[in-house]
Amino acid sequence: MLYVIGLGLADEKDISVNGLEAVRKSERVYLEAYTSILLVDVQKLQDFYGRAVTIADRDMVETESEEILSRASEVDVSFLVVGDPYGATTHTDLLLRARNAGVPTRVFHNASIMNAAGASGLQLYNFGQTISIPFFTETWKPSSFVERIAENMRIGAHTLLLLDIKVKEQSVENLARGRKIFEPPRYMSVSRAVEQLLTLLDEKAEGYSEDAYTRETLAVSLSRVGAEQQVIKAGTLRELAEVDEDAFGPPLHSLILVGKRLHDLEAEFGEAFAVGNGWKEGCKKLVQHV
Amino acid sequence: MLYVIGLGLADEKDISVNGLEAVRKSERVYLEAYTSILLVDVQKLQDFYGRAVTIADRDMVETESEEILSRASEVDVSFLVVGDPYGATTHTDLLLRARNAGVPTRVFHNASIMNAAGASGLQLYNFGQTISIPFFTETWKPSSFVERIAENMRIGAHTLLLLDIKVKEQSVENLARGRKIFEPPRYMSVSRAVEQLLTLLDEKAEGYSEDAYTRETLAVSLSRVGAEQQVIKAGTLRELAEVDEDAFGPPLHSLILVGKRLHDLEAEFGEAFAVGNGWKEGCKKLVQHV
Repeated sequence: MLYVIGLGLADEKDISVNGLEAVRKSERVYLEAYTSILLVDVQKLQDFYGRAVTIADRDMVETESEEILSRASEVDVSFLVVGDPYGATTHTDLLLRARNAGVPTRVFHNASIMNAAGASGLQLYNFGQTISIPFFTETWKPSSFVERIAENMRIGAHTLLLLDIKVKEQSVENLARGRKIFEPPRYMSVSRAVEQLLTLLDEKAEGYSEDAYTRETLAVSLSRVGAEQQVIKAGTLRELAEVDEDAFGPPLHSLILVGKRLHDLEAEFGEAFAVGNGWKEGCKKLVQHV
Repeated sequence: MLYVIGLGLADEKDISVNGLEAVRKSERVYLEAYTSILLVDVQKLQDFYGRAVTIADRDMVETESEEILSRASEVDVSFLVVGDPYGATTHTDLLLRARNAGVPTRVFHNASIMNAAGASGLQLYNFGQTISIPFFTETWKPSSFVERIAENMRIGAHTLLLLDIKVKEQSVENLARGRKIFEPPRYMSVSRAVEQLLTLLDEKAEGYSEDAYTRETLAVSLSRVGAEQQVIKAGTLRELAEVDEDAFGPPLHSLILVGKRLHDLEAEFGEAFAVGNGWKEGCKKLVQHV
Protein backbone atom coordinates (compact mmCIF):
# COMPACT_ATOMS: atom_id res chain seq x y z
CA MET A 1 0.00 0.00 0.00
CA LEU A 2 1.21 3.50 -0.83
CA TYR A 3 0.21 5.87 1.94
CA VAL A 4 0.26 9.52 0.98
CA ILE A 5 0.22 11.37 4.25
CA GLY A 6 -0.27 15.07 4.94
CA LEU A 7 2.00 16.36 7.71
CA GLY A 8 0.17 19.61 8.33
CA LEU A 9 2.01 22.84 8.71
CA ALA A 10 4.37 23.22 11.60
CA ASP A 11 6.07 20.36 13.42
CA GLU A 12 6.46 16.59 13.68
CA LYS A 13 3.35 16.28 15.85
CA ASP A 14 0.96 17.90 13.37
CA ILE A 15 0.58 14.52 11.68
CA SER A 16 -2.73 12.78 12.44
CA VAL A 17 -2.81 9.70 14.64
CA ASN A 18 -4.00 7.70 11.60
CA GLY A 19 -1.09 9.05 9.57
CA LEU A 20 1.42 8.28 12.30
CA GLU A 21 0.22 4.68 12.54
CA ALA A 22 0.70 4.28 8.79
CA VAL A 23 4.22 5.75 8.88
CA ARG A 24 5.25 3.50 11.74
CA LYS A 25 4.25 0.35 9.89
CA SER A 26 5.89 1.39 6.61
CA GLU A 27 9.01 -0.28 5.28
CA ARG A 28 10.14 2.85 3.44
CA VAL A 29 9.31 6.50 4.16
CA TYR A 30 9.85 9.41 1.73
CA LEU A 31 9.46 13.11 2.42
CA GLU A 32 8.64 15.45 -0.45
CA ALA A 33 10.66 18.56 0.30
CA TYR A 34 10.51 20.92 -2.63
CA THR A 35 6.99 22.33 -2.80
CA SER A 36 6.83 23.28 0.89
CA ILE A 37 8.75 22.86 4.15
CA LEU A 38 7.95 21.97 7.72
CA LEU A 39 9.37 24.20 10.44
CA VAL A 40 11.42 21.35 11.94
CA ASP A 41 14.22 19.34 10.34
CA VAL A 42 14.15 15.77 9.10
CA GLN A 43 16.04 14.41 12.08
CA LYS A 44 13.17 15.44 14.31
CA LEU A 45 10.69 13.62 12.08
CA GLN A 46 12.86 10.49 12.10
CA ASP A 47 13.20 10.52 15.88
CA PHE A 48 9.49 10.92 16.44
CA TYR A 49 8.35 8.47 13.75
CA GLY A 50 11.04 5.91 14.59
CA ARG A 51 11.67 5.49 10.89
CA ALA A 52 14.43 6.54 8.49
CA VAL A 53 13.10 9.23 6.16
CA THR A 54 14.42 9.64 2.61
CA ILE A 55 14.24 13.15 1.18
CA ALA A 56 12.54 13.05 -2.22
CA ASP A 57 13.51 15.93 -4.50
CA ARG A 58 11.72 16.95 -7.67
CA ASP A 59 13.73 14.56 -9.86
CA MET A 60 12.93 11.60 -7.67
CA VAL A 61 9.18 12.31 -7.51
CA GLU A 62 8.62 13.42 -11.06
CA THR A 63 10.97 11.30 -13.12
CA GLU A 64 12.16 8.46 -10.86
CA SER A 65 8.90 7.56 -9.18
CA GLU A 66 9.55 3.85 -9.85
CA GLU A 67 11.78 3.84 -6.80
CA ILE A 68 9.01 5.20 -4.60
CA LEU A 69 6.42 2.82 -6.05
CA SER A 70 8.76 -0.17 -6.00
CA ARG A 71 7.11 -3.22 -4.34
CA ALA A 72 4.44 -0.92 -2.90
CA SER A 73 1.83 -3.55 -3.77
CA GLU A 74 3.49 -5.98 -1.33
CA VAL A 75 4.85 -3.76 1.44
CA ASP A 76 3.72 -0.49 3.02
CA VAL A 77 5.40 2.66 1.73
CA SER A 78 4.73 6.16 3.07
CA PHE A 79 5.09 9.34 1.05
CA LEU A 80 4.99 12.37 3.34
CA VAL A 81 3.78 15.72 2.13
CA VAL A 82 3.87 19.03 3.99
CA GLY A 83 0.29 20.33 4.26
CA ASP A 84 -2.30 18.16 2.52
CA PRO A 85 -1.51 15.44 -0.05
CA TYR A 86 -3.57 17.16 -2.75
CA GLY A 87 -1.92 20.53 -2.24
CA ALA A 88 0.39 20.30 -5.25
CA THR A 89 -0.09 18.92 -8.75
CA THR A 90 2.99 16.76 -8.35
CA HIS A 91 1.31 14.63 -5.64
CA THR A 92 -1.84 14.16 -7.67
CA ASP A 93 0.44 13.02 -10.46
CA LEU A 94 2.15 10.47 -8.20
CA LEU A 95 -1.24 9.09 -7.11
CA LEU A 96 -2.21 8.78 -10.76
CA ARG A 97 0.98 6.88 -11.57
CA ALA A 98 0.39 4.58 -8.59
CA ARG A 99 -3.13 3.91 -9.84
CA ASN A 100 -1.88 3.19 -13.36
CA ALA A 101 0.74 0.82 -11.93
CA GLY A 102 -1.94 -1.05 -9.97
CA VAL A 103 -0.55 0.05 -6.60
CA PRO A 104 -3.28 0.47 -3.95
CA THR A 105 -3.20 3.87 -2.28
CA ARG A 106 -4.62 5.51 0.81
CA VAL A 107 -4.51 9.23 1.50
CA PHE A 108 -4.46 10.85 4.95
CA HIS A 109 -5.54 14.46 4.78
CA ASN A 110 -4.25 17.29 6.89
CA ALA A 111 -4.34 21.06 7.20
CA SER A 112 -2.71 23.03 4.40
CA ILE A 113 -2.29 26.72 3.78
CA MET A 114 -5.41 26.45 1.58
CA ASN A 115 -7.64 26.04 4.63
CA ALA A 116 -5.38 27.27 7.47
CA ALA A 117 -5.53 30.70 5.80
CA GLY A 118 -8.74 30.95 7.79
CA ALA A 119 -6.51 31.90 10.75
CA SER A 120 -6.64 35.41 9.28
CA GLY A 121 -10.29 35.56 10.31
CA LEU A 122 -11.23 35.90 6.65
CA GLN A 123 -13.86 33.27 5.87
CA LEU A 124 -12.70 30.56 3.49
CA TYR A 125 -15.91 30.49 1.48
CA ASN A 126 -15.22 34.11 0.50
CA PHE A 127 -11.92 33.25 -1.22
CA GLY A 128 -11.59 33.12 -5.00
CA GLN A 129 -8.85 31.43 -7.00
CA THR A 130 -5.47 31.00 -5.33
CA ILE A 131 -2.45 32.67 -6.94
CA SER A 132 1.25 31.80 -6.88
CA ILE A 133 3.70 34.71 -7.01
CA PRO A 134 7.09 33.83 -8.53
CA PHE A 135 10.32 35.67 -7.68
CA PHE A 136 11.29 38.42 -10.11
CA THR A 137 14.54 37.61 -11.87
CA GLU A 138 17.04 40.13 -13.25
CA THR A 139 15.43 39.93 -16.64
CA TRP A 140 11.83 38.95 -15.96
CA LYS A 141 9.03 40.42 -13.87
CA PRO A 142 6.15 37.98 -14.23
CA SER A 143 2.76 39.65 -13.95
CA SER A 144 0.25 37.30 -15.57
CA PHE A 145 -1.27 36.48 -12.17
CA VAL A 146 -2.47 40.09 -11.75
CA GLU A 147 -5.42 39.46 -14.05
CA ARG A 148 -6.42 36.51 -11.83
CA ILE A 149 -6.41 38.79 -8.79
CA ALA A 150 -8.60 41.24 -10.70
CA GLU A 151 -11.04 38.43 -11.52
CA ASN A 152 -11.41 37.66 -7.83
CA MET A 153 -11.65 41.32 -6.85
CA ARG A 154 -14.40 42.02 -9.37
CA ILE A 155 -16.62 39.44 -7.66
CA GLY A 156 -15.59 40.72 -4.21
CA ALA A 157 -13.61 37.58 -3.27
CA HIS A 158 -10.42 37.43 -1.20
CA THR A 159 -7.23 36.17 -2.86
CA LEU A 160 -4.68 33.90 -1.22
CA LEU A 161 -1.20 34.49 -2.62
CA LEU A 162 1.26 31.63 -2.24
CA LEU A 163 4.80 32.99 -2.21
CA ASP A 164 7.58 31.41 -4.24
CA ILE A 165 9.91 28.75 -2.86
CA LYS A 166 13.20 27.98 -4.57
CA VAL A 167 14.80 24.75 -3.43
CA LYS A 168 17.72 23.00 -5.12
CA GLU A 169 17.93 25.64 -7.86
CA GLN A 170 21.08 25.88 -9.96
CA SER A 171 22.65 29.14 -11.08
CA VAL A 172 22.59 29.75 -14.83
CA GLU A 173 26.34 29.16 -14.93
CA ASN A 174 26.22 25.89 -12.99
CA LEU A 175 23.29 24.71 -15.08
CA ALA A 176 25.15 25.51 -18.32
CA ARG A 177 28.25 23.69 -17.15
CA GLY A 178 26.24 20.73 -15.87
CA ARG A 179 27.54 21.19 -12.33
CA LYS A 180 25.22 19.76 -9.68
CA ILE A 181 25.86 22.68 -7.34
CA PHE A 182 22.73 24.13 -5.81
CA GLU A 183 21.93 27.59 -4.52
CA PRO A 184 20.78 27.97 -0.91
CA PRO A 185 16.98 27.68 -0.62
CA ARG A 186 15.02 30.92 -0.93
CA TYR A 187 11.57 31.59 0.49
CA MET A 188 9.75 34.71 -0.58
CA SER A 189 8.94 36.99 2.35
CA VAL A 190 5.81 39.09 2.70
CA SER A 191 8.00 42.17 2.30
CA ARG A 192 9.36 40.93 -0.98
CA ALA A 193 5.92 39.95 -2.23
CA VAL A 194 4.47 43.38 -1.41
CA GLU A 195 7.46 45.08 -3.02
CA GLN A 196 6.95 43.07 -6.20
CA LEU A 197 3.22 43.85 -6.26
CA LEU A 198 3.91 47.57 -5.88
CA THR A 199 6.59 47.46 -8.57
CA LEU A 200 4.08 45.98 -11.03
CA LEU A 201 1.68 48.76 -10.07
CA ASP A 202 4.31 51.54 -10.41
CA GLU A 203 5.52 50.24 -13.76
CA LYS A 204 1.96 49.61 -14.97
CA ALA A 205 3.02 46.08 -15.90
CA GLU A 206 1.20 44.17 -18.62
CA GLY A 207 -2.18 43.09 -17.26
CA TYR A 208 -2.02 45.43 -14.26
CA SER A 209 -5.27 47.20 -13.51
CA GLU A 210 -6.66 49.05 -10.55
CA ASP A 211 -9.32 46.36 -10.39
CA ALA A 212 -6.62 44.05 -9.03
CA TYR A 213 -5.13 46.21 -6.28
CA THR A 214 -3.74 49.59 -5.35
CA ARG A 215 -1.57 50.81 -2.46
CA GLU A 216 -4.78 51.14 -0.41
CA THR A 217 -5.90 47.54 -0.87
CA LEU A 218 -6.23 45.71 2.43
CA ALA A 219 -4.06 42.67 2.98
CA VAL A 220 -3.33 40.14 5.71
CA SER A 221 0.07 38.48 6.02
CA LEU A 222 0.51 35.01 7.45
CA SER A 223 3.85 33.71 8.76
CA ARG A 224 4.29 30.13 9.95
CA VAL A 225 0.56 29.49 10.23
CA GLY A 226 -0.32 26.85 12.79
CA ALA A 227 3.00 27.12 14.62
CA GLU A 228 3.27 28.57 18.11
CA GLN A 229 5.39 31.38 16.60
CA GLN A 230 2.69 32.25 14.07
CA VAL A 231 2.61 35.93 13.10
CA ILE A 232 -0.34 37.63 11.39
CA LYS A 233 -0.38 41.27 10.29
CA ALA A 234 -3.11 43.30 8.64
CA GLY A 235 -3.13 46.64 6.88
CA THR A 236 -3.03 48.33 3.50
CA LEU A 237 -0.31 47.27 1.07
CA ARG A 238 1.21 50.72 1.65
CA GLU A 239 1.41 50.01 5.39
CA LEU A 240 2.74 46.46 5.04
CA ALA A 241 5.47 47.74 2.71
CA GLU A 242 6.71 49.91 5.57
CA VAL A 243 6.87 47.11 8.15
CA ASP A 244 10.41 45.92 8.89
CA GLU A 245 11.01 42.61 7.12
CA ASP A 246 12.24 41.00 10.34
CA ALA A 247 8.88 41.60 11.97
CA PHE A 248 7.33 38.92 9.76
CA GLY A 249 9.88 36.40 11.07
CA PRO A 250 11.24 33.30 9.36
CA PRO A 251 9.43 31.49 6.47
CA LEU A 252 6.98 30.31 5.29
CA HIS A 253 4.94 33.40 4.47
CA SER A 254 1.68 33.93 2.61
CA LEU A 255 -0.37 37.00 1.84
CA ILE A 256 -4.09 37.55 1.43
CA LEU A 257 -5.63 40.42 -0.53
CA VAL A 258 -9.00 41.35 0.91
CA GLY A 259 -12.01 41.43 -1.42
CA LYS A 260 -14.77 43.99 -1.12
CA ARG A 261 -17.38 41.51 0.11
CA LEU A 262 -16.00 41.79 3.63
CA HIS A 263 -18.17 40.88 6.62
CA ASP A 264 -18.26 42.66 9.97
CA LEU A 265 -16.88 39.64 11.79
CA GLU A 266 -13.93 39.41 9.39
CA ALA A 267 -13.18 43.09 9.87
CA GLU A 268 -13.39 42.82 13.65
CA PHE A 269 -11.22 39.70 13.82
CA GLY A 270 -8.48 41.44 11.82
CA GLU A 271 -8.25 44.40 14.21
CA ALA A 272 -5.94 42.49 16.53
CA PHE A 273 -3.49 42.11 13.64
CA ALA A 274 -3.59 45.70 12.39
CA VAL A 275 -0.21 47.45 11.93
CA GLY A 276 -1.78 50.93 11.65
CA ASN A 277 -5.03 52.77 11.05
CA GLY A 278 -5.38 51.50 7.52
CA TRP A 279 -7.13 48.27 8.44
CA LYS A 280 -9.97 49.85 10.38
CA GLU A 281 -10.46 52.71 7.92
CA GLY A 282 -10.32 50.42 4.92
CA CYS A 283 -12.77 47.97 6.46
CA LYS A 284 -15.22 50.76 7.23
CA LYS A 285 -15.32 51.71 3.56
CA LEU A 286 -15.77 48.10 2.44
CA VAL A 287 -18.42 47.09 4.96
CA GLN A 288 -20.50 50.14 4.02
CA HIS A 289 -20.46 48.97 0.42
CA VAL A 290 -22.03 45.59 1.15
CA MET B 1 -5.88 28.10 27.77
CA LEU B 2 -8.71 27.53 25.30
CA TYR B 3 -7.62 24.99 22.70
CA VAL B 4 -9.68 24.99 19.54
CA ILE B 5 -8.87 21.72 17.86
CA GLY B 6 -9.73 20.51 14.39
CA LEU B 7 -10.70 16.83 14.31
CA GLY B 8 -10.37 16.32 10.58
CA LEU B 9 -12.99 14.50 8.62
CA ALA B 10 -13.57 10.86 9.39
CA ASP B 11 -12.78 9.19 12.69
CA GLU B 12 -11.34 9.63 16.18
CA LYS B 13 -7.78 9.14 14.93
CA ASP B 14 -7.83 11.97 12.40
CA ILE B 15 -6.91 14.36 15.19
CA SER B 16 -3.28 15.51 15.11
CA VAL B 17 -0.84 14.30 17.74
CA ASN B 18 -0.53 17.90 18.97
CA GLY B 19 -4.31 18.15 19.19
CA LEU B 20 -4.59 14.85 21.05
CA GLU B 21 -2.02 15.95 23.63
CA ALA B 22 -4.02 19.14 24.24
CA VAL B 23 -7.31 17.22 24.66
CA ARG B 24 -5.76 14.78 27.08
CA LYS B 25 -4.53 17.52 29.38
CA SER B 26 -7.81 19.47 29.31
CA GLU B 27 -10.12 19.68 32.28
CA ARG B 28 -13.20 20.11 30.11
CA VAL B 29 -13.78 19.03 26.51
CA TYR B 30 -16.60 20.27 24.24
CA LEU B 31 -17.57 19.02 20.80
CA GLU B 32 -19.32 21.35 18.38
CA ALA B 33 -21.83 19.13 16.64
CA TYR B 34 -24.15 21.24 14.53
CA THR B 35 -22.13 22.58 11.58
CA SER B 36 -20.66 19.20 10.64
CA ILE B 37 -20.36 15.61 11.89
CA LEU B 38 -17.65 13.02 12.24
CA LEU B 39 -18.37 9.54 10.96
CA VAL B 40 -18.00 7.98 14.42
CA ASP B 41 -20.05 8.65 17.54
CA VAL B 42 -19.07 10.56 20.66
CA GLN B 43 -18.51 7.42 22.73
CA LYS B 44 -15.68 6.47 20.40
CA LEU B 45 -14.07 9.89 20.84
CA GLN B 46 -14.39 9.64 24.62
CA ASP B 47 -12.84 6.19 24.74
CA PHE B 48 -9.90 7.18 22.58
CA TYR B 49 -9.28 10.56 24.21
CA GLY B 50 -9.83 9.26 27.73
CA ARG B 51 -11.93 12.33 28.46
CA ALA B 52 -15.62 13.03 28.89
CA VAL B 53 -16.88 15.05 25.92
CA THR B 54 -19.78 17.51 26.24
CA ILE B 55 -21.84 18.05 23.08
CA ALA B 56 -22.13 21.77 22.41
CA ASP B 57 -25.19 22.72 20.38
CA ARG B 58 -25.78 26.03 18.66
CA ASP B 59 -27.36 27.62 21.74
CA MET B 60 -24.43 26.70 23.92
CA VAL B 61 -21.79 28.00 21.50
CA GLU B 62 -23.54 31.12 20.31
CA THR B 63 -25.42 32.39 23.33
CA GLU B 64 -24.01 30.53 26.34
CA SER B 65 -20.33 30.66 25.54
CA GLU B 66 -19.57 31.79 29.10
CA GLU B 67 -19.81 28.17 30.16
CA ILE B 68 -17.21 27.11 27.60
CA LEU B 69 -14.91 30.01 28.45
CA SER B 70 -15.41 29.64 32.20
CA ARG B 71 -12.06 29.55 34.06
CA ALA B 72 -10.28 28.94 30.73
CA SER B 73 -7.60 31.40 31.82
CA GLU B 74 -6.66 29.10 34.69
CA VAL B 75 -7.29 25.59 33.37
CA ASP B 76 -7.08 23.96 29.95
CA VAL B 77 -10.33 23.67 28.01
CA SER B 78 -10.66 22.01 24.60
CA PHE B 79 -13.26 22.92 22.02
CA LEU B 80 -13.37 20.27 19.30
CA VAL B 81 -14.47 21.10 15.80
CA VAL B 82 -15.06 18.69 12.91
CA GLY B 83 -12.74 19.69 10.06
CA ASP B 84 -10.66 22.81 10.72
CA PRO B 85 -11.34 25.33 13.51
CA TYR B 86 -11.81 28.20 11.04
CA GLY B 87 -14.26 26.28 8.87
CA ALA B 88 -17.38 27.98 10.24
CA THR B 89 -18.11 31.55 11.26
CA THR B 90 -19.33 30.38 14.62
CA HIS B 91 -15.85 29.18 15.65
CA THR B 92 -14.21 32.43 14.57
CA ASP B 93 -16.80 34.15 16.69
CA LEU B 94 -15.94 32.00 19.73
CA LEU B 95 -12.24 32.81 19.29
CA LEU B 96 -13.12 36.49 19.14
CA ARG B 97 -15.14 36.26 22.34
CA ALA B 98 -12.28 34.43 24.05
CA ARG B 99 -9.90 37.17 22.95
CA ASN B 100 -12.25 39.88 24.23
CA ALA B 101 -12.55 38.03 27.54
CA GLY B 102 -8.76 37.88 27.86
CA VAL B 103 -8.67 34.09 27.54
CA PRO B 104 -5.47 32.84 25.84
CA THR B 105 -6.19 30.57 22.86
CA ARG B 106 -4.31 28.11 20.71
CA VAL B 107 -5.67 26.63 17.49
CA PHE B 108 -4.72 23.23 16.06
CA HIS B 109 -5.52 23.04 12.38
CA ASN B 110 -6.69 19.99 10.48
CA ALA B 111 -8.09 18.92 7.15
CA SER B 112 -11.53 20.23 6.24
CA ILE B 113 -13.74 19.80 3.22
CA MET B 114 -12.28 23.11 1.96
CA ASN B 115 -8.93 21.48 1.21
CA ALA B 116 -9.82 17.76 1.19
CA ALA B 117 -11.97 18.52 -1.87
CA GLY B 118 -8.64 18.09 -3.67
CA ALA B 119 -9.35 14.33 -3.45
CA SER B 120 -11.46 14.90 -6.56
CA GLY B 121 -8.24 15.52 -8.48
CA LEU B 122 -9.42 19.06 -9.17
CA GLN B 123 -6.65 21.43 -8.13
CA LEU B 124 -7.54 23.62 -5.18
CA TYR B 125 -6.02 26.79 -6.63
CA ASN B 126 -8.57 26.54 -9.45
CA PHE B 127 -11.55 26.83 -7.10
CA GLY B 128 -13.56 30.02 -6.77
CA GLN B 129 -15.91 30.99 -3.94
CA THR B 130 -17.50 28.18 -1.95
CA ILE B 131 -21.30 27.92 -1.93
CA SER B 132 -23.74 26.50 0.60
CA ILE B 133 -26.93 24.93 -0.76
CA PRO B 134 -29.88 25.01 1.65
CA PHE B 135 -32.72 22.49 1.59
CA PHE B 136 -35.80 23.58 -0.31
CA THR B 137 -38.79 23.93 1.98
CA GLU B 138 -42.42 23.50 1.03
CA THR B 139 -42.75 27.21 0.45
CA TRP B 140 -39.26 28.37 -0.45
CA LYS B 141 -36.75 27.39 -3.11
CA PRO B 142 -33.66 29.48 -2.36
CA SER B 143 -31.66 30.30 -5.47
CA SER B 144 -29.50 33.31 -4.61
CA PHE B 145 -26.36 31.17 -4.66
CA VAL B 146 -26.80 30.50 -8.39
CA GLU B 147 -25.37 33.92 -9.24
CA ARG B 148 -22.28 33.05 -7.17
CA ILE B 149 -21.79 29.89 -9.19
CA ALA B 150 -22.08 31.95 -12.37
CA GLU B 151 -19.41 34.34 -11.09
CA ASN B 152 -17.02 31.42 -10.63
CA MET B 153 -17.92 29.86 -13.95
CA ARG B 154 -17.34 33.09 -15.87
CA ILE B 155 -13.71 33.10 -14.71
CA GLY B 156 -13.38 29.36 -15.36
CA ALA B 157 -13.11 28.38 -11.68
CA HIS B 158 -14.49 25.25 -10.03
CA THR B 159 -17.19 25.62 -7.38
CA LEU B 160 -17.37 23.60 -4.17
CA LEU B 161 -20.97 23.21 -3.00
CA LEU B 162 -21.45 22.47 0.70
CA LEU B 163 -24.72 20.64 1.22
CA ASP B 164 -27.14 21.58 3.96
CA ILE B 165 -27.13 19.96 7.39
CA LYS B 166 -30.15 20.24 9.68
CA VAL B 167 -29.43 19.30 13.27
CA LYS B 168 -31.73 19.94 16.22
CA GLU B 169 -34.33 21.67 14.04
CA GLN B 170 -37.87 22.15 15.37
CA SER B 171 -40.99 21.75 13.29
CA VAL B 172 -42.96 24.96 12.77
CA GLU B 173 -45.64 23.64 15.09
CA ASN B 174 -43.23 22.69 17.89
CA LEU B 175 -41.46 26.01 17.52
CA ALA B 176 -44.74 27.92 17.73
CA ARG B 177 -45.80 26.00 20.82
CA GLY B 178 -42.37 26.37 22.41
CA ARG B 179 -41.93 22.61 22.62
CA LYS B 180 -38.29 21.54 22.74
CA ILE B 181 -38.94 18.57 20.46
CA PHE B 182 -36.41 18.19 17.66
CA GLU B 183 -36.66 16.62 14.24
CA PRO B 184 -34.20 13.85 13.32
CA PRO B 185 -31.01 15.25 11.73
CA ARG B 186 -31.04 15.61 7.94
CA TYR B 187 -28.02 15.68 5.68
CA MET B 188 -28.46 16.71 2.05
CA SER B 189 -27.40 13.97 -0.35
CA VAL B 190 -25.74 14.53 -3.70
CA SER B 191 -28.93 13.25 -5.35
CA ARG B 192 -31.02 15.84 -3.54
CA ALA B 193 -28.56 18.62 -4.36
CA VAL B 194 -28.51 17.74 -8.06
CA GLU B 195 -32.30 17.50 -8.09
CA GLN B 196 -32.59 20.97 -6.53
CA LEU B 197 -30.10 22.43 -9.01
CA LEU B 198 -32.03 20.98 -11.93
CA THR B 199 -35.34 22.21 -10.51
CA LEU B 200 -33.97 25.77 -10.41
CA LEU B 201 -32.87 25.34 -14.01
CA ASP B 202 -36.23 23.91 -15.17
CA GLU B 203 -38.19 26.59 -13.40
CA LYS B 204 -35.80 29.32 -14.55
CA ALA B 205 -35.56 30.48 -10.95
CA GLU B 206 -34.66 34.06 -10.11
CA GLY B 207 -30.97 34.55 -10.81
CA TYR B 208 -30.63 31.34 -12.81
CA SER B 209 -28.56 31.68 -15.96
CA GLU B 210 -26.83 29.25 -18.28
CA ASP B 211 -23.57 30.85 -17.19
CA ALA B 212 -24.00 29.01 -13.90
CA TYR B 213 -24.74 25.48 -15.10
CA THR B 214 -26.81 23.32 -17.40
CA ARG B 215 -27.59 19.59 -17.47
CA GLU B 216 -24.29 19.08 -19.32
CA THR B 217 -22.12 20.78 -16.69
CA LEU B 218 -19.50 18.42 -15.30
CA ALA B 219 -19.59 17.70 -11.60
CA VAL B 220 -17.75 15.56 -9.08
CA SER B 221 -19.48 14.20 -5.99
CA LEU B 222 -17.66 13.53 -2.74
CA SER B 223 -19.02 11.26 -0.01
CA ARG B 224 -17.24 10.80 3.33
CA VAL B 225 -13.97 12.30 2.08
CA GLY B 226 -10.96 11.03 3.95
CA ALA B 227 -12.73 7.93 5.27
CA GLU B 228 -11.88 4.44 4.09
CA GLN B 229 -15.43 4.23 2.68
CA GLN B 230 -14.95 7.41 0.65
CA VAL B 231 -16.93 7.49 -2.61
CA ILE B 232 -16.22 9.86 -5.50
CA LYS B 233 -18.28 10.04 -8.68
CA ALA B 234 -17.86 12.19 -11.77
CA GLY B 235 -20.11 12.99 -14.69
CA THR B 236 -22.54 15.53 -16.06
CA LEU B 237 -25.34 16.75 -13.80
CA ARG B 238 -27.70 14.82 -16.10
CA GLU B 239 -25.75 11.61 -15.42
CA LEU B 240 -25.42 12.16 -11.67
CA ALA B 241 -29.17 12.74 -11.45
CA GLU B 242 -29.68 9.22 -12.78
CA VAL B 243 -27.35 7.52 -10.28
CA ASP B 244 -29.20 5.63 -7.55
CA GLU B 245 -29.11 7.66 -4.32
CA ASP B 246 -27.81 4.65 -2.36
CA ALA B 247 -24.70 4.53 -4.54
CA PHE B 248 -23.43 7.71 -2.90
CA GLY B 249 -23.67 6.04 0.51
CA PRO B 250 -24.22 7.65 3.91
CA PRO B 251 -23.44 11.37 4.65
CA LEU B 252 -21.62 13.70 4.51
CA HIS B 253 -21.79 14.61 0.85
CA SER B 254 -20.43 17.52 -1.17
CA LEU B 255 -20.53 18.39 -4.83
CA ILE B 256 -18.12 20.22 -7.12
CA LEU B 257 -19.12 21.95 -10.34
CA VAL B 258 -16.24 21.91 -12.81
CA GLY B 259 -15.08 25.21 -14.31
CA LYS B 260 -13.93 25.55 -17.89
CA ARG B 261 -10.28 26.17 -16.98
CA LEU B 262 -9.76 22.42 -16.61
CA HIS B 263 -6.25 20.93 -16.88
CA ASP B 264 -5.34 17.63 -18.54
CA LEU B 265 -4.22 16.14 -15.24
CA GLU B 266 -7.54 17.02 -13.60
CA ALA B 267 -9.47 15.46 -16.47
CA GLU B 268 -7.36 12.30 -16.37
CA PHE B 269 -7.60 11.92 -12.60
CA GLY B 270 -11.39 12.11 -12.77
CA GLU B 271 -11.70 9.27 -15.27
CA ALA B 272 -11.54 6.67 -12.52
CA PHE B 273 -14.64 8.23 -10.97
CA ALA B 274 -16.71 8.58 -14.16
CA VAL B 275 -20.25 7.16 -14.04
CA GLY B 276 -20.69 7.29 -17.83
CA ASN B 277 -19.26 8.78 -21.02
CA GLY B 278 -20.17 12.31 -20.05
CA TRP B 279 -16.99 12.96 -18.06
CA LYS B 280 -14.58 12.14 -20.85
CA GLU B 281 -16.59 13.86 -23.54
CA GLY B 282 -17.18 16.94 -21.44
CA CYS B 283 -13.51 17.18 -20.49
CA LYS B 284 -12.47 16.93 -24.13
CA LYS B 285 -14.55 19.98 -24.95
CA LEU B 286 -13.20 21.96 -22.00
CA VAL B 287 -9.53 21.10 -22.41
CA GLN B 288 -9.71 22.11 -26.09
CA HIS B 289 -10.97 25.50 -25.02
CA VAL B 290 -7.96 26.27 -22.84
